[in-house]
Amino acid sequence: MNDQWRFIASSMPQWLEDCRPYAHNGSPAAYIPELAKAPKEALGITLLAADGSMINGGDSSFMFTMQSISKVFTLLLALIDNGEEAVFAKVGMEPTGDDFNSMLKLELVEPGIPFNPLINAGAIAVTSLIRGSSPAETTERILAFMRLMAGDDSIGYNETVSSSEAATAYRNRSLAYFLKDNNVLEAHTDVEQVLSVYFNHCAIEVNCRHLARMGLILANGGFDPLANRQLLPRRYVQIAKTFMLTCGMYNASGEFAIKAGIPAKSGVAGGILAVVPGQYGIGVVGPALDQRGNSIAGVRLLETMSVECDWSIF
Amino acid sequence: MNDQWRFIASSMPQWLEDCRPYAHNGSPAAYIPELAKAPKEALGITLLAADGSMINGGDSSFMFTMQSISKVFTLLLALIDNGEEAVFAKVGMEPTGDDFNSMLKLELVEPGIPFNPLINAGAIAVTSLIRGSSPAETTERILAFMRLMAGDDSIGYNETVSSSEAATAYRNRSLAYFLKDNNVLEAHTDVEQVLSVYFNHCAIEVNCRHLARMGLILANGGFDPLANRQLLPRRYVQIAKTFMLTCGMYNASGEFAIKAGIPAKSGVAGGILAVVPGQYGIGVVGPALDQRGNSIAGVRLLETMSVECDWSIF
Amino acid sequence: MNDQWRFIASSMPQWLEDCRPYAHNGSPAAYIPELAKAPKEALGITLLAADGSMINGGDSSFMFTMQSISKVFTLLLALIDNGEEAVFAKVGMEPTGDDFNSMLKLELVEPGIPFNPLINAGAIAVTSLIRGSSPAETTERILAFMRLMAGDDSIGYNETVSSSEAATAYRNRSLAYFLKDNNVLEAHTDVEQVLSVYFNHCAIEVNCRHLARMGLILANGGFDPLANRQLLPRRYVQIAKTFMLTCGMYNASGEFAIKAGIPAKSGVAGGILAVVPGQYGIGVVGPALDQRGNSIAGVRLLETMSVECDWSIF
Amino acid sequence: MNDQWRFIASSMPQWLEDCRPYAHNGSPAAYIPELAKAPKEALGITLLAADGSMINGGDSSFMFTMQSISKVFTLLLALIDNGEEAVFAKVGMEPTGDDFNSMLKLELVEPGIPFNPLINAGAIAVTSLIRGSSPAETTERILAFMRLMAGDDSIGYNETVSSSEAATAYRNRSLAYFLKDNNVLEAHTDVEQVLSVYFNHCAIEVNCRHLARMGLILANGGFDPLANRQLLPRRYVQIAKTFMLTCGMYNASGEFAIKAGIPAKSGVAGGILAVVPGQYGIGVVGPALDQRGNSIAGVRLLETMSVECDWSIF
Repeated sequence: MNDQWRFIASSMPQWLEDCRPYAHNGSPAAYIPELAKAPKEALGITLLAADGSMINGGDSSFMFTMQSISKVFTLLLALIDNGEEAVFAKVGMEPTGDDFNSMLKLELVEPGIPFNPLINAGAIAVTSLIRGSSPAETTERILAFMRLMAGDDSIGYNETVSSSEAATAYRNRSLAYFLKDNNVLEAHTDVEQVLSVYFNHCAIEVNCRHLARMGLILANGGFDPLANRQLLPRRYVQIAKTFMLTCGMYNASGEFAIKAGIPAKSGVAGGILAVVPGQYGIGVVGPALDQRGNSIAGVRLLETMSVECDWSIF
Repeated sequence: MNDQWRFIASSMPQWLEDCRPYAHNGSPAAYIPELAKAPKEALGITLLAADGSMINGGDSSFMFTMQSISKVFTLLLALIDNGEEAVFAKVGMEPTGDDFNSMLKLELVEPGIPFNPLINAGAIAVTSLIRGSSPAETTERILAFMRLMAGDDSIGYNETVSSSEAATAYRNRSLAYFLKDNNVLEAHTDVEQVLSVYFNHCAIEVNCRHLARMGLILANGGFDPLANRQLLPRRYVQIAKTFMLTCGMYNASGEFAIKAGIPAKSGVAGGILAVVPGQYGIGVVGPALDQRGNSIAGVRLLETMSVECDWSIF
Repeated sequence: MNDQWRFIASSMPQWLEDCRPYAHNGSPAAYIPELAKAPKEALGITLLAADGSMINGGDSSFMFTMQSISKVFTLLLALIDNGEEAVFAKVGMEPTGDDFNSMLKLELVEPGIPFNPLINAGAIAVTSLIRGSSPAETTERILAFMRLMAGDDSIGYNETVSSSEAATAYRNRSLAYFLKDNNVLEAHTDVEQVLSVYFNHCAIEVNCRHLARMGLILANGGFDPLANRQLLPRRYVQIAKTFMLTCGMYNASGEFAIKAGIPAKSGVAGGILAVVPGQYGIGVVGPALDQRGNSIAGVRLLETMSVECDWSIF
Repeated sequence: MNDQWRFIASSMPQWLEDCRPYAHNGSPAAYIPELAKAPKEALGITLLAADGSMINGGDSSFMFTMQSISKVFTLLLALIDNGEEAVFAKVGMEPTGDDFNSMLKLELVEPGIPFNPLINAGAIAVTSLIRGSSPAETTERILAFMRLMAGDDSIGYNETVSSSEAATAYRNRSLAYFLKDNNVLEAHTDVEQVLSVYFNHCAIEVNCRHLARMGLILANGGFDPLANRQLLPRRYVQIAKTFMLTCGMYNASGEFAIKAGIPAKSGVAGGILAVVPGQYGIGVVGPALDQRGNSIAGVRLLETMSVECDWSIF
């Protein structure tokens, strides 16, 4: 246990107290009843180091759905299933500057593939590449991958949230059919089946400790220091972390890169997965969102910690 | 029979001969096999006057699907069913300058309703307003309306074309789900049911004589001079003709208004319904399309006739 | 003097009283001090018939700058100077659905020429085509043309307004340089010189009677019934009236076509030039504008009159 | 001299030989005669380490204008002159996904400030913030800063290139006036004066050695290891490197981050400034550009080296 670790552990209560009030200025995602019910002022964090040391703060046991955070892992699984070339034939590598559910660039910019795998359009395209003979099997493969990454076989998805999204996600349906029209979703791909897998993996339930464990593996280039084995090809982890830095926080990604400077991915349930390369995996949750869709207190907490601990990779 | 009528009748063979070669520079719509099979060089026209006089030229008996031309009549039926206020709560009155299947303005311009009833998004919204307890019943009501307007009870829709569109119209599905997300399609509206009605009415089969008859009624403010009765409220006919002039020829509407200056509506099967107010109804067909989706020879024919006969309403 | 004329004359006081309160919901253009000073509740109208009969109502003697109304006449002059082909090589024929000062379509749609001559970009391009060896000479030619059309040699432009625009019209400058970059403004064209002519013709001062006289000539296909001579080629007048109908009221043109159905062109000083084809020229002024930039009471007045008198050309 | 350094030194001839042919698929920027004259197949590189060791390859002495590379340093100077808060009131932190000279987001996204300081609009805004009582003085301050960073007092700007840009840069003028209209350029700011400074700093001439020296200082957090002093606040250097990673390679920045993973900034004269944090400064030149405006062979060379040397920061 080094000095920085002790500093973090001792400062955490104060940081949580300082950041929690920011939740007043945001609100939980309203479009799914289950998400809207989340406790607005919850704020939790887990840091996990390679030696297994863990700092938990606040509501770190609070369970929430991964939502967009799952996109990092479906990208990894699609890369494992298909390789880089096949994946990047269907999705680009560029940040967009547009909202996460925007269709503008699909219509305006040739060749009409999603700009990156972390916007909704890109994540739906990526989901379509994950192997499985049925939506149930594909969902099961994703769950198995999440369990492996989180080191917890009890992880599952919240069927109420998944069904609720399936019943109302008209914008995602619109995106998916646009992708079908642009041949990003291929002829043999059934739009509703892809969407059902997509809603399932967005509804996978975790807590901060799970995210911290997943983040630790990314922080170590795919190597799980606790299980002492390489879980993922290092190159794919590098790709995932690059996208997290350039596109992980919706269209506030650039700002988060300037202010915190570490790879991170947020979800509309208020979770944030963050990585301090070579050091820590971090899981954060705070259901009240800012206008961009990021946890308002969670972002503040990570920015504070990054500045205090000098984590920026730049 | 007046001088202009005789002039038209005697000039028609030459006009057809002059305009037919333009078809070389276009091609039939390719996205539906049935449409792609259309004879590229076909060109037909029917003019119908209030006294029942008719001039037929070229392939005027050629049967084709109405496609977007049907949007004029679904607008009329939606107005009859709901009144102006309810219809224009769901669709605007402005030309867009964008492609007929564009989604840009739905995303960019508040309040996110389609700009007008003649682009695809607007026509889908309008279709959702036509009464009927089931897609079959709504389709039947539209068919009955078309038969009344065309004065031919044998009119039906081409199930092969309708099914073919239903199987592949991903862009229209994408539009419809976007409308659902924007609450233009209401909570109780089933997207697939609306689309099935939409594909059915686009697939209604007519020939130039049918269109000329429909156009004659529009030319006379909703009064059918052959049946000697008012079929439609004059105000709704006025609305329909205004939209035909400002938005009827996709994003070449402005150019057609400058060059021909008469209300017209085209469809991607190559048909054009045109109206010389107070005088004639006109049906034209020529399956080879220009880049905007209008019959390339048909547009040329109407522009030629309008200039020669001084038809512009301006 | 026919029945309609008597009806209009007798109804006018009531119509003005009914429409004047709409001014409360709008405001004069604020970006030029001179315009902002305009009396918000002013409302004036002149109707002029071919026999010289005139109805004046309200503030019909109020002097105001033409602003965008001048675009109709610079288009006519550019057509006279260059012919249709040369003009339409630099400007399109399509309504845009975008704001009058938008640059979106210049960037997004090939070949990057303005969509029509009545949006700012198009009007600047048109102004560059009007002959003259210097901005002063071109301005003088435009003034001479306006005087001829209005039948009043005293017409001039307001130098305070023109200078004020010249000093602050950054958006128009931005548009003009974009046009220069796209080669719409040609190599030999000096942007500042074109803009100075543009600001001058926008600042030409008229009252409702002037506009009514100009409109009467357009209503009669370029023939001046009071001077008993053809002032303009009928074809060019037809073109101008077509654009007025499809694009004359900014991005409320479609709505005005549906509700009033007559060619009209508005300006941000609150003026509207309207044409009842074959019958009347109309000038209206009401400085309070709606969100689209049209005179809020003036639009209401014209819509009321058109409905009451059944003026729609459709 | 460590193993990696020896590996780079010995591999460089082969890497240059492998990458040079990519120039065939690109061309020098054509819009300025001086740039178009550049030798298409030139390819040069300099690596500089903190101990002063240097590897030069190919045309490393070739002089070229910095163009967009200068934007990194004007950002640094603007931060020094004004602090973070003032700078980020005028320019955002987000990648755009649009072309470097695009105006779309300025029109579409409130509050209408440029998305980041490395697109043209943002760099013009940043230039307006650099102190100086005249364009000449501001230019001189920028030059002095570049000389300090490059350790070479002989650095100057190419007046032919600057004048050539000043004479033809209509799109940049259009951008600048748009910024003026949006109050990003303030009331007291003269557009032409800002542009003259902008064209001057884009025309500053350097070679690969200069860029490598500048890059070395960025690689060391603003500390110049050769002069043994802190030249820049570490925080500002962090900001600059973050923008280089997220936005430095135009709208191929995301792809370069995935493939090379190091902060870099390109210019249309073919230069690239790259930074291997904590290790090297790198200057590259290759005038033939790809479609995004980046040196086609230079990008290839950096990607090759980054993969071979495992430089990605992710």
